[in-house]
Amino acid sequence: MAEEAAVRAQAETVRRLKQDKADPDEIAKEVAKLLDMKAQLGADEGKQKFVLKTPKGTRDFGPKEMAIRERAFKAIISCFKRHGAEVIDTPVFELKETLTGKYGEDSKLIYDLKDQGGELLSLRYDLTVPFARYLAMNKITNIKRYHIAKVYRRDNPAMTRGRYREFYQCDFDIAGQFDPMIPDAECLKIVHEILSDLQLGDFVIKVNDRRILDGMFAVCGVPDSKFRTICSSVDKLDKVPWEEVRSEMVGEKGLSPEAADRIGEYVQLHGGLELIERLLQDPKLSQNKLAKEGLGDIKLLFEYLTLFGITGKISFDLSLARGLDYYTGVIFEAVLLQQENEHVEEAVSVGSVAGGGRYDGLVGMFDPKGRKVPCVGVSIGIERIFSILEQRLEASEEKIRTTETQVLVASAQKKLLEERLKLISELWDAGIKAEMLYKKNPKLLNQLQYCEDTGIPLVAIVGEQELKDGVVKLRIVATREEVDVRRESLVEEIRIRTSQC
Amino acid sequence: MAEEAAVRAQAETVRRLKQDKADPDEIAKEVAKLLDMKAQLGADEGKQKFVLKTPKGTRDFGPKEMAIRERAFKAIISCFKRHGAEVIDTPVFELKETLTGKYGEDSKLIYDLKDQGGELLSLRYDLTVPFARYLAMNKITNIKRYHIAKVYRRDNPAMTRGRYREFYQCDFDIAGQFDPMIPDAECLKIVHEILSDLQLGDFVIKVNDRRILDGMFAVCGVPDSKFRTICSSVDKLDKVPWEEVRSEMVGEKGLSPEAADRIGEYVQLHGGLELIERLLQDPKLSQNKLAKEGLGDIKLLFEYLTLFGITGKISFDLSLARGLDYYTGVIFEAVLLQQENEHVEEAVSVGSVAGGGRYDGLVGMFDPKGRKVPCVGVSIGIERIFSILEQRLEASEEKIRTTETQVLVASAQKKLLEERLKLISELWDAGIKAEMLYKKNPKLLNQLQYCEDTGIPLVAIVGEQELKDGVVKLRIVATREEVDVRRESLVEEIRIRTSQC
Repeated sequence: MAEEAAVRAQAETVRRLKQDKADPDEIAKEVAKLLDMKAQLGADEGKQKFVLKTPKGTRDFGPKEMAIRERAFKAIISCFKRHGAEVIDTPVFELKETLTGKYGEDSKLIYDLKDQGGELLSLRYDLTVPFARYLAMNKITNIKRYHIAKVYRRDNPAMTRGRYREFYQCDFDIAGQFDPMIPDAECLKIVHEILSDLQLGDFVIKVNDRRILDGMFAVCGVPDSKFRTICSSVDKLDKVPWEEVRSEMVGEKGLSPEAADRIGEYVQLHGGLELIERLLQDPKLSQNKLAKEGLGDIKLLFEYLTLFGITGKISFDLSLARGLDYYTGVIFEAVLLQQENEHVEEAVSVGSVAGGGRYDGLVGMFDPKGRKVPCVGVSIGIERIFSILEQRLEASEEKIRTTETQVLVASAQKKLLEERLKLISELWDAGIKAEMLYKKNPKLLNQLQYCEDTGIPLVAIVGEQELKDGVVKLRIVATREEVDVRRESLVEEIRIRTSQC
Repeated sequence: MAEEAAVRAQAETVRRLKQDKADPDEIAKEVAKLLDMKAQLGADEGKQKFVLKTPKGTRDFGPKEMAIRERAFKAIISCFKRHGAEVIDTPVFELKETLTGKYGEDSKLIYDLKDQGGELLSLRYDLTVPFARYLAMNKITNIKRYHIAKVYRRDNPAMTRGRYREFYQCDFDIAGQFDPMIPDAECLKIVHEILSDLQLGDFVIKVNDRRILDGMFAVCGVPDSKFRTICSSVDKLDKVPWEEVRSEMVGEKGLSPEAADRIGEYVQLHGGLELIERLLQDPKLSQNKLAKEGLGDIKLLFEYLTLFGITGKISFDLSLARGLDYYTGVIFEAVLLQQENEHVEEAVSVGSVAGGGRYDGLVGMFDPKGRKVPCVGVSIGIERIFSILEQRLEASEEKIRTTETQVLVASAQKKLLEERLKLISELWDAGIKAEMLYKKNPKLLNQLQYCEDTGIPLVAIVGEQELKDGVVKLRIVATREEVDVRRESLVEEIRIRTSQC
């Protein structure tokens, strides 16, 4: 068939691009083409017309992916609990109006539900807005909580890089009226702990403040009405070069070339405490009230981070803007640094894995009386981290177990199904993790092979002779050693032999 | 204000109904009225018009509810793992066509997403259809997995009874070609283990078989084309009396009165092995091939359940039908039995908490070549279980902790913020769960009160003298005892003192 030949040719293209380590987006494009062609081919052959797939930008997690996911979650949750956080959960959808006016230019990416009569609903876009709605609705003015759940964005997926339309966020937030920068510093400590713990390689946490950005826009001559949209342009600096951002500011957004150039000078600055001190002396910036407040707080933040011993990974970076509308103070973003080519002089950032900031006005937008609850929080972008952990596991050839089964209940002879059922039931009732093959008369070899394949360390073998003697033969899969264990001691014996598992 | 007086009157109505232990649905109705009135009042006062709420039929889980939820999940997951299950996850939405034609009359309850360009999507209605889609898509013919996730049904919510539009399902399924009834028996054992473990009170697991139902319909004179719709009518027998079901069959669905009456005789039968034996001798039923197969398998199932020692809670019940279209063999449903009025003679069922069955054709509906993968599984309806656990906790006045914090880092004097930050950072880095108040100079009394409120067992107090001496004062909250601990031994001391937590 001609179609099949075309599929083979396309598959070859993909293979070659991968071999040449081509641009991931180009590979992704060619893979998508290949999948489309394959789906087309399948549909032509089969009796059904529909395509067997998950929706665009989403994926299933099989047992192996789940094992990796649960490892990462465990590290993150244990950090959140170490910092004394409670946990909450909210519905996957909210009233549409709850999300309206919170995300600026990104609002177009919200998934709406069909109007089937009743309320108009949208899938949550992040966990921050539902959190603020929860606080206002329950009149909570003081809480430290985490929330791990999926959020939804109708964005252009780039799945090979861990960019999906359905993805997990792991959020930690502190709400309440407190002394300046103490909760903010803790959020940065948390990012530092998690990224270190997951051993993802070198990283840097960029820090800025919305008040410094707004002050900078003011002294550069940006009109008030253009602050948010110019902020969105600055936000693109981690992906596109300054020239492009500048031409967007001037061309699309109508900013004067002089103002853009003044911004251009500021946004290339990054550093530590000495840069903060320098900007506090900057003749223009130091005259702006907002910028001065922001710089003062960033200075305090750096003092606390010095006490935490983590300033080595923190960079005060004037090009950091963050896309979302609701930030009001400190903002930050953690990026992993490229390590593959160790000969390149400067480390190149390969993508954001965590971000957050202060949003003191969001809860007040929901409160009928406009009462404010100051908040600061961090969101860990876990999909990108999954991708890295998956790639690493694949490279390492480590065999990952997907069950925790301690023992397989087996028999060497026929007609012992009833005895296997009785024994496994005893083990389950004693809390032992046990499996058996669902066959009346399975071959011993198949039973042993199943243990090899799935990593089950022990086999409990019942046979005529063992039943008469009141024992069970316990086989240790790794060493092939076999011992007779009295039936009443079996549970204890299995516990001892698998206690290190 | 007149409106405020009306709200107060309505609140009084609700209070009275609760005191009188009125019908939960009536209370729910009056509470809804009250909330509406309050919302109205709030909207009139406030500057914003929108209602601050979660979508109809959904709810938030606060820290206390989450603590209960995690307890229940822990019991369920540990059972699933005890039986050697792997875990998977799938997207919250599927292609609309993936769900089409799987749920019979319930399909109208599916949530669709708005057509925003691109694929037509629906929120998943259960975890079984996505599982079958996953198997077919990945050509998996053999797996034992669990999946715990939220599903969505646009049903009439009755939230006081734990009936929501967004709710968790905890599913365990075994897919593969095996010897008859061995996996089926394990599913029932799992239901028995979980309901016993959660100590929800007495329960019964009703069991039937779709082939017995279909055979019964045939010998009663139901035309083939009406099997599924008559099955849906029988499914209502747990909620409405036979007379109503009969009139639906005859009136709405056009069944002959004679056929309906013959069905009426069968569906009142329930019992154990002796009933199975009797029906195997039934002159009409025993002539029907499907019914005979089903009865033979149910008999085998009961033999295995006898080996598991759980037949005491199993009832073979001919009125059990299960609503969903996809079942092909054994079906079952677990109901809790009323216990409050211990003087009533027969236990009354208060609601289904688990259900499942065999669906051998579902995967084949997705496979392009129609290849079948036999499956059997169980779904635990956890929301109903949460409601019971929540009510019980409220009644018991047990104080439930919502964090795991081991120690609060405090100071008795002013100007020690920096020292607190240094100490807490050391503790976090050593893996100790620690908190501090986000104030520069908190009062000692407030710090101790925070421990009382949140159940933190230890306080590490830094002061001028302690810093000089190289020690930290460790206070045990419960006994008010205080000991000086050398700074380098503090982590170990905290670990020892909280090891039982």
